[in-house]
Amino acid sequence: MNIAFIGFGKVAYTLSRLIQSQDIDFITSAENRSEGTMDLINKADIEVFDSFSDALKNADIVISAVTPSQAVGVARNYGKYCNGIYLDLNNISPDTTGKINDLVGNLVDGAIIGKIDSNNPTLYLSGENADELLFLNDFLNVKVISDKIGDASRLKLLRSTYTKSLSVLLIETYDLARKLDLGDEFFDTLSLTEGDDFRKKSLSRISNTLKSSKRKAEELEEILNYFDDDGLDMVKVALDKLRQF
Amino acid sequence: MNIAFIGFGKVAYTLSRLIQSQDIDFITSAENRSEGTMDLINKADIEVFDSFSDALKNADIVISAVTPSQAVGVARNYGKYCNGIYLDLNNISPDTTGKINDLVGNLVDGAIIGKIDSNNPTLYLSGENADELLFLNDFLNVKVISDKIGDASRLKLLRSTYTKSLSVLLIETYDLARKLDLGDEFFDTLSLTEGDDFRKKSLSRISNTLKSSKRKAEELEEILNYFDDDGLDMVKVALDKLRQF
Repeated sequence: MNIAFIGFGKVAYTLSRLIQSQDIDFITSAENRSEGTMDLINKADIEVFDSFSDALKNADIVISAVTPSQAVGVARNYGKYCNGIYLDLNNISPDTTGKINDLVGNLVDGAIIGKIDSNNPTLYLSGENADELLFLNDFLNVKVISDKIGDASRLKLLRSTYTKSLSVLLIETYDLARKLDLGDEFFDTLSLTEGDDFRKKSLSRISNTLKSSKRKAEELEEILNYFDDDGLDMVKVALDKLRQF
Repeated sequence: MNIAFIGFGKVAYTLSRLIQSQDIDFITSAENRSEGTMDLINKADIEVFDSFSDALKNADIVISAVTPSQAVGVARNYGKYCNGIYLDLNNISPDTTGKINDLVGNLVDGAIIGKIDSNNPTLYLSGENADELLFLNDFLNVKVISDKIGDASRLKLLRSTYTKSLSVLLIETYDLARKLDLGDEFFDTLSLTEGDDFRKKSLSRISNTLKSSKRKAEELEEILNYFDDDGLDMVKVALDKLRQF
């Protein structure tokens, strides 16, 4: 079986390492690649075709793992060459996944939860053909959610809605605790119910949120626009605060 | 050493079971006790004096574990008989702890975090005499925060600020996930980073919050009034929502 990558960054490289089987060959193309990407492709030691049309025609599965803004473009340009499953792993909104569904056949909507190069990456899939990718469970955690294109992307947004808002709640309550000279004790008392790693995890969330508050605000704004739900009052305040950090 | 209880409910009973030592005797009084309380005192099998004045005069440590509304009254009525440490374990605001500090000598401010009858109750203490209670570490987790009366009470409020707001955030994001038929998967994806018990813990928080939303709203309102902090925007929205549940 041939698996072709469009885009070859950390996600593709890591998958090519995780998925090791005599029955599976990874392929890609050198078309329009930067030098850095070619270095990574060579490091992964996979077969390289001159054009994406050649690579994709030879593929049973095509994996699109590009930057979000390129996701629709590569589907439009190369999707037509894909005869097998087209797995989109890009960090895009469910609406964008819908657009891609109009451009390629046999789309599977995929969302990686957690960092791909963590100990325990999980791949959530949705779409009518998602079950055909369950064999990947031999190499990483794979869960099929539903046969609806968009569900995997929606799930990722739901998770992100919670974690981004939680980070803002952490920032405002920890700020108060520090004003009262009880910052350490605040984490201590919460660890009792939230787990031993609560302090470390929370401090990392707080620092990541403050470091990239602008980007996170933009992402959360897009999420709120997408869901367009009246019930998300706390999330809306989280967005307001993210904009002010 | 004699430890005297004012109030004898679940907290006092559980402490009398947890703290078992040849050197420690528990005592209390039958003064103004209900039949139910006397049953519990008899079950605990501890020495009973006719009056609190007699019991407290014989005590090295007095533990006040009554209902919050009684905390100041018992300190006013009986505090004068206490020659040793007066440990207040009541679920009261730091301001109320301050009032009690004016009524009794040698006050230690105590806050039990988690349920007293759980596997792992932790007792946070503050006040100049708090260190004298560190021997209780032989029987349960005891942490001295500072020498400031009020810090233990404040810490409990800080913890509660976070957990109550978190529960409301859970309710609003889980509501959305369920509307999208992704309720189970929402918990699944969060478990990856929030811990294996995230679903169970969250569902229990959601149900407890909805069941006692009125009481929790009142508690959170008092907390917000006490802290009087401009930065708690998400907490304020959590309070608004608690009032509407």
